[in-house]
Amino acid sequence: MRNLKLVLRYDGSRYSGWQSQKHDENTIQGRLTVLLERLLGETIELAGSGRTDAGVHALGQVANFRTKSDIACEKLFAELNRYLPEDIAVVSVQEVPFRFHSRLNAVRKTYRYRIWNSPVHNVFERKYVYALEEALDEEAMRQAAANLCGTHDFRAFSSYRRTKKSTVRTLENITIERQGSELILTFTGDGFLYHMVRILTGTLIEVGLHKKNAGEIKEILASQDRERAGFTAPAQGLCLVCVEYGN
Amino acid sequence: MRNLKLVLRYDGSRYSGWQSQKHDENTIQGRLTVLLERLLGETIELAGSGRTDAGVHALGQVANFRTKSDIACEKLFAELNRYLPEDIAVVSVQEVPFRFHSRLNAVRKTYRYRIWNSPVHNVFERKYVYALEEALDEEAMRQAAANLCGTHDFRAFSSYRRTKKSTVRTLENITIERQGSELILTFTGDGFLYHMVRILTGTLIEVGLHKKNAGEIKEILASQDRERAGFTAPAQGLCLVCVEYGN
Repeated sequence: MRNLKLVLRYDGSRYSGWQSQKHDENTIQGRLTVLLERLLGETIELAGSGRTDAGVHALGQVANFRTKSDIACEKLFAELNRYLPEDIAVVSVQEVPFRFHSRLNAVRKTYRYRIWNSPVHNVFERKYVYALEEALDEEAMRQAAANLCGTHDFRAFSSYRRTKKSTVRTLENITIERQGSELILTFTGDGFLYHMVRILTGTLIEVGLHKKNAGEIKEILASQDRERAGFTAPAQGLCLVCVEYGN
Repeated sequence: MRNLKLVLRYDGSRYSGWQSQKHDENTIQGRLTVLLERLLGETIELAGSGRTDAGVHALGQVANFRTKSDIACEKLFAELNRYLPEDIAVVSVQEVPFRFHSRLNAVRKTYRYRIWNSPVHNVFERKYVYALEEALDEEAMRQAAANLCGTHDFRAFSSYRRTKKSTVRTLENITIERQGSELILTFTGDGFLYHMVRILTGTLIEVGLHKKNAGEIKEILASQDRERAGFTAPAQGLCLVCVEYGN
């Protein structure tokens, strides 16, 4: 048995996310599983580094699966790209050690959230940005972002109902960068809870609109209360940029 | 009466082009005309710098219309962007001399054709590029492009059936630039015939694939025969970048 790692890029607009039912072709995982099973003639269990929500995009999602096939990586790369729809691409196929697992071995993930901050529509990238016309106080957002970084219980920033699993995560860095009409929020951390990046973004936007202030962040974290944090920013502005692994 | 100039940006994917019937909302011109007439309460004749085909995009299309309204340009700009669909944007609204005409006074136009030259789909910009996997001989394309530049009768490079109008145009410049997996062809000239940029592109692609050679270009021009030139490259890779006017 070999273990193959895929790096994937997709426009999530018309999918119901990475995962739901195994062979559901409305999911990225389902599309890939059906295609891999046809190409390789065996049952495939495709593990992703994590789920992306309906409508969320990826520049560098990582997945892996085990196979009895001896197909060359270059050949599988070409075949996958030949038969995948135009909104999913395989960036690389690589044989990895048998114990490698795309989710369990991930040590760092980077997400990017794009806010289109102008009355003039972004006609070409409108499906990859969240359009918000109002002026944003970027300095206040950066202060709030600084208060979010570090190791915290991020329960207030997730949509979990009840979970016994730890909701402690380390948010290493948030950068807030303006490029013309666009405000780009980049989040790097060791892992993210369900909806966490979108709720962090929604909270930062509310700070930028002066509906919340940067000083409240610590109280919101301490409250562990989802109601205290900001709104869940729309999926379409979010993109999983990359997943990193240790040696 | 005032004369107002609009600079427009649009994703042409779901439209049947710039113009067909005046109030056809499947055209860019129709969408704008209907909206302008509602906003201003009068009949509007919106003139574009030229038609763009179904599926062709624009970064800087120019149009103008005359109006009795005294609406401020800033207000019209805001209202248009508020009510236009997400795939059309008004970049600017400006009052211009009464005699200005967006088509008749245009002195130079620039078009860009994007070729996505990779087996890995361009998932995010797939609607704005023409995907072509085969290797292209860029040097041969540049030689052919040099033979196309200048003042020529471009009848062989247009889809006109019969026309008594002149088919002589001056193609000032063609640049062919590689940016990673993308090959970008930029055409600047004093005017372009129907389908001309797409046929120029198709011909250059055929040279890049060694189906034609750069030396044939002069014969094709001289033949005035559409059959001698290359295929009409798909609309979706084409974008009207800007229209320039004299003083």
